[in-house]
Amino acid sequence: MAHRVQIVGATGYGGLGILELLLAHPDFEVTSLIARDEAGRRIDEVYPHLHGRTDLTVDSVETTPVGTNCDVVVFSTPDGVSQGYAAALADAGMRFIDYSGDFRFASTDDYAKYAARHPSIADEAHGAEALLGRAAYGVSELNPEGVAAAPIVGNPGCFAVGIILGLAPLFQDGLVGDEGIVAVDGLTGSSGAGKKPAPLQHLSHLNDNVIPYRVLSHQHVVEADLTLGRLGKANGAQVDFIPHLLGTTRGILNTMHLRLTQSASREGLLERYREYFADAPFVRVLDTPPTLKGTLGSNYCDISVFVEGNRAVVMSSIDNLMKGQSGSAMQNLNLMFGSAQTAGLDRTPLYP
Amino acid sequence: MAHRVQIVGATGYGGLGILELLLAHPDFEVTSLIARDEAGRRIDEVYPHLHGRTDLTVDSVETTPVGTNCDVVVFSTPDGVSQGYAAALADAGMRFIDYSGDFRFASTDDYAKYAARHPSIADEAHGAEALLGRAAYGVSELNPEGVAAAPIVGNPGCFAVGIILGLAPLFQDGLVGDEGIVAVDGLTGSSGAGKKPAPLQHLSHLNDNVIPYRVLSHQHVVEADLTLGRLGKANGAQVDFIPHLLGTTRGILNTMHLRLTQSASREGLLERYREYFADAPFVRVLDTPPTLKGTLGSNYCDISVFVEGNRAVVMSSIDNLMKGQSGSAMQNLNLMFGSAQTAGLDRTPLYP
Amino acid sequence: MAHRVQIVGATGYGGLGILELLLAHPDFEVTSLIARDEAGRRIDEVYPHLHGRTDLTVDSVETTPVGTNCDVVVFSTPDGVSQGYAAALADAGMRFIDYSGDFRFASTDDYAKYAARHPSIADEAHGAEALLGRAAYGVSELNPEGVAAAPIVGNPGCFAVGIILGLAPLFQDGLVGDEGIVAVDGLTGSSGAGKKPAPLQHLSHLNDNVIPYRVLSHQHVVEADLTLGRLGKANGAQVDFIPHLLGTTRGILNTMHLRLTQSASREGLLERYREYFADAPFVRVLDTPPTLKGTLGSNYCDISVFVEGNRAVVMSSIDNLMKGQSGSAMQNLNLMFGSAQTAGLDRTPLYP
Amino acid sequence: MAHRVQIVGATGYGGLGILELLLAHPDFEVTSLIARDEAGRRIDEVYPHLHGRTDLTVDSVETTPVGTNCDVVVFSTPDGVSQGYAAALADAGMRFIDYSGDFRFASTDDYAKYAARHPSIADEAHGAEALLGRAAYGVSELNPEGVAAAPIVGNPGCFAVGIILGLAPLFQDGLVGDEGIVAVDGLTGSSGAGKKPAPLQHLSHLNDNVIPYRVLSHQHVVEADLTLGRLGKANGAQVDFIPHLLGTTRGILNTMHLRLTQSASREGLLERYREYFADAPFVRVLDTPPTLKGTLGSNYCDISVFVEGNRAVVMSSIDNLMKGQSGSAMQNLNLMFGSAQTAGLDRTPLYP
Repeated sequence: MAHRVQIVGATGYGGLGILELLLAHPDFEVTSLIARDEAGRRIDEVYPHLHGRTDLTVDSVETTPVGTNCDVVVFSTPDGVSQGYAAALADAGMRFIDYSGDFRFASTDDYAKYAARHPSIADEAHGAEALLGRAAYGVSELNPEGVAAAPIVGNPGCFAVGIILGLAPLFQDGLVGDEGIVAVDGLTGSSGAGKKPAPLQHLSHLNDNVIPYRVLSHQHVVEADLTLGRLGKANGAQVDFIPHLLGTTRGILNTMHLRLTQSASREGLLERYREYFADAPFVRVLDTPPTLKGTLGSNYCDISVFVEGNRAVVMSSIDNLMKGQSGSAMQNLNLMFGSAQTAGLDRTPLYP
Repeated sequence: MAHRVQIVGATGYGGLGILELLLAHPDFEVTSLIARDEAGRRIDEVYPHLHGRTDLTVDSVETTPVGTNCDVVVFSTPDGVSQGYAAALADAGMRFIDYSGDFRFASTDDYAKYAARHPSIADEAHGAEALLGRAAYGVSELNPEGVAAAPIVGNPGCFAVGIILGLAPLFQDGLVGDEGIVAVDGLTGSSGAGKKPAPLQHLSHLNDNVIPYRVLSHQHVVEADLTLGRLGKANGAQVDFIPHLLGTTRGILNTMHLRLTQSASREGLLERYREYFADAPFVRVLDTPPTLKGTLGSNYCDISVFVEGNRAVVMSSIDNLMKGQSGSAMQNLNLMFGSAQTAGLDRTPLYP
Repeated sequence: MAHRVQIVGATGYGGLGILELLLAHPDFEVTSLIARDEAGRRIDEVYPHLHGRTDLTVDSVETTPVGTNCDVVVFSTPDGVSQGYAAALADAGMRFIDYSGDFRFASTDDYAKYAARHPSIADEAHGAEALLGRAAYGVSELNPEGVAAAPIVGNPGCFAVGIILGLAPLFQDGLVGDEGIVAVDGLTGSSGAGKKPAPLQHLSHLNDNVIPYRVLSHQHVVEADLTLGRLGKANGAQVDFIPHLLGTTRGILNTMHLRLTQSASREGLLERYREYFADAPFVRVLDTPPTLKGTLGSNYCDISVFVEGNRAVVMSSIDNLMKGQSGSAMQNLNLMFGSAQTAGLDRTPLYP
Repeated sequence: MAHRVQIVGATGYGGLGILELLLAHPDFEVTSLIARDEAGRRIDEVYPHLHGRTDLTVDSVETTPVGTNCDVVVFSTPDGVSQGYAAALADAGMRFIDYSGDFRFASTDDYAKYAARHPSIADEAHGAEALLGRAAYGVSELNPEGVAAAPIVGNPGCFAVGIILGLAPLFQDGLVGDEGIVAVDGLTGSSGAGKKPAPLQHLSHLNDNVIPYRVLSHQHVVEADLTLGRLGKANGAQVDFIPHLLGTTRGILNTMHLRLTQSASREGLLERYREYFADAPFVRVLDTPPTLKGTLGSNYCDISVFVEGNRAVVMSSIDNLMKGQSGSAMQNLNLMFGSAQTAGLDRTPLYP
């Protein structure tokens, strides 16, 4: 019997993404869509490309409370929202995944570092501190057993997924020098910012443009620093991150520069990466540089490494709405409910 | 001595466009920028690409009333705004150009047809009826003497410019059959909708997309119908117009299908077009189909004509922010103040 | 047991498209990839986005002759190629689908009209005349039984699919006046021209551009004219077609203007369209104008109709590489081998 | 009297760029266009956007030898071409500018480092060694007097311009630690690769894509390393450079990560940059991150600096066809012939 899923925040791109994946999944069933803004409308009116794919209607949280008629809740909501529902859900034994930073951190100290960088939640205490320790951080590849067992999964930030997967083998092996400093230029499509109209995402401004923003201050870096810095032989990490907004819709390509603690050959590193990700069905280690479109519409993370003397450059490509968001959530749901990791996610990237 | 210009609505794309043209013009000087939203900020803070080009600061209409310290006012404002200032300006002998539909029509009857199609002004009476007869419609090529002499110029709608110039020779000669019906597909970049964030112009929605809108109901068609239908031997016109929003920033390409009243050769029609526009420095009659980028950043209107039996297809390309807006306004200002039509407008399109 | 498919011309976008669909299809298996240019290379080297999806290697026709080890051949090849193999395949009882114009026409007369418009084959006689009568024209919706039974299917041209589906109900009912003349502006992404580098498809030229081409002379119109003009009460059709190349990769949006023989309401026409396509799982009749991205990556054809007096405008949107090419081929293969039409094609469009 | 210019390689984007600038320049006149491929055609047939702007026809070098009827030659040609003409021109006292790497290096040793990275010229000896010492490297801001006096100017590589201007103040002051290592991610539009159709620049492949290439091996880095490493207190430079091809036409944005030898405040560095470029009319030091479109169509180089502890990030934006190529060439021609640096270059970026 299909596992029943409720999506909260169903009308944003995150809600749309997981809805589409679940509609095509043999083991899951979407029982309700909750959203603040479009309650009462059919979801295929909100998103006409869904015409004929589903009859679901958007409900308000007043008519369909969070946790109703489901086995798991997916929160595709801003920071701070799921915190408010967490205790009640936990008490009821209901599992949930959250897309925001609410449950990505194992302690209030870690969370505080993140919150400090996030204008909308700076200086606010976490609303469900006691549950932080029960949440698993959802970069599926790093902790599949943890995710499988967790009552709560904190789905990772889109930039963090590509950075963490791209650097994990090197931090694991203690190969990153300079006290773990990595210079990262992240290139992202506009969809990571959601569908709300805003000056930065206005086509006349962004089309054909590249716009660096939150220079050295993006909040996703906190989870990358904490996660990478605690892997294996790692002893801290510090990602100097410059996000660049591109005039395209989907995709994140991270280019990461670092100094190795010991010399290594490119072939040796690629081999190590392939070994490290041997059981990860969505990580592809390539001989050639990954491209943004090489992962479009799929759940893949494509990675390659280049070396010059004691310096290495790692590049990773993901679809920010798939592996960077709903694809990771689907992968985590698969882990949580015992399906194959690839169930419902076995998609070739859309090319050309 | 330079003619002094005040720009009202200076922080939109229309205000920006005429500001840039005037800053580079030998005969004009911008003395003030008026806007509601950014008063007190330097215009190069609002638009960083202007850094180093001007020291002008945006004023509110409270501190710098409309008509202050200038020889002419350019209203780059929504429908209904200039109507409110028109009488006072006319009384003071101040000339002005308006970008909206307020002064594009010679009579209240004509204006009513336009207003009926325009959600924001439907059913509102014109606020300066008495002045309609003193305004010239500013498709510069059709009426250069009228524009030169007029105290008020109604700058044309962006779609209308390309449609009117593309069809004028045929209507002039009475060559359009089917009672003047022309089927027009207009393709436009996003900038015609201005800089205000909106769902239709969100990059994630519009990038790589084509979105037909206001199907058979766009308000610009009214001025095209009225203007074309009264040219030379014409006896009415009816443009069936489908605007299509493209995922690009600038440019309008209109493809126009019609039936000829009498057979004609392609060569003959091209020759007639060249003759008709012999004195129009910005109309280029091409042997090949015009392209959208072929006029980018310039004031050109590129036109070509194709014939199949008794049916003709005319295509025209303009930059919607230049010939479709500020370029036409600059050309009209040149006419009004006795400069050469091409003064300040002698620009090669930006290619590639 | 899976039906075995050989793809000839496997390294172009058409071959890639059907390969991807077949790899994900439960009822089919790709047994060989034939191509001239990349023989000996793995297909995931040619297309890195396929990394991990298949181990297939490209063969030359010398090492793997056409028709080897398969139940059906898909020719994704230029005009003229499949003609040369057709007789041998027919003799061997091997069915095939062809993407070119070789088998879209039921008679040499019809084919001659098409060939006359096609520079590369003008004035060449068809190489397998005797087989034309055994081929079915593969707009699946118009002739599903014919396709199911045919030994040869002529897969339709990308523009033709959208035009024919958009206009079929009106021609069927004899509603198109003006002797069947329809003015059509087609907007297409670059991928229809294939992957071969060419000046028109160079990004620096095409990005942000709109380029009309083959004005009133595109060869796809011939199959639209012939097909529509013979439907139900229709008495000939003449599509005045202007293709416009856009600076985007995928998708075709056709806007079609025509005069009705009798007045009709918009609601009535939409109702008629819904009835006409009641059994067509991939045609969606929308209340709102279709958009280019609304069908991206899917096999849908989205259609809407608008009416003004006795004039109608029909718009249709398809993904040119799916419903316009490989998706239709897959749908036809499903019909030919008794699978559900939607098998392997049940995909939501990629949005945003 | 206007200085007469001959353009060799006139039909590429580089030749087109300098032609357009010279046509609008009061002090220069183009007397001939030389190219191999389009000899005999009007240049406005090759580039229809030039319709009405010039009557010039493309000549072959056979009919119009290099150096004919001119005061200066601009070579917009591949590596190796101008070397062959250099001696004859020098003997005749004819000055020239070259767009390739032929005259960017002061010694054969330096040139050899560059040539080694360049597939088409690797292992070839320079054809005019004796003249290397008489050429000035044409980053105008670093050496205006040298350029003004030089008989030969080696116009810089597009990536090098943005990297050198962005880092010059720091290297000048000896502030770059880590032995001068700088990690640079360069983002570029497609036009830097010229107009020749190629797989990488095919719209279907590049649109919406990001494609890293020549990872850590791009030849432009050699001139950046040599130039920066010899500035003021600098003691060598090593740029770890990853170029990324974007799906847009124009522009280069470089993001550059380095470690400072001593702590510095952001304000202090910005102030130093403003002082350093006080006499450079085309360098704009911004408080906010530069954007790609912020310099489009102009000769500006926009720069900003950010600091975190002892680490700095510098970003610079140029139009690769202007400041990165023809704009720099025009600026150098102005210096060589005594015009103001800004003559013919006083253009506002095209925005939106």
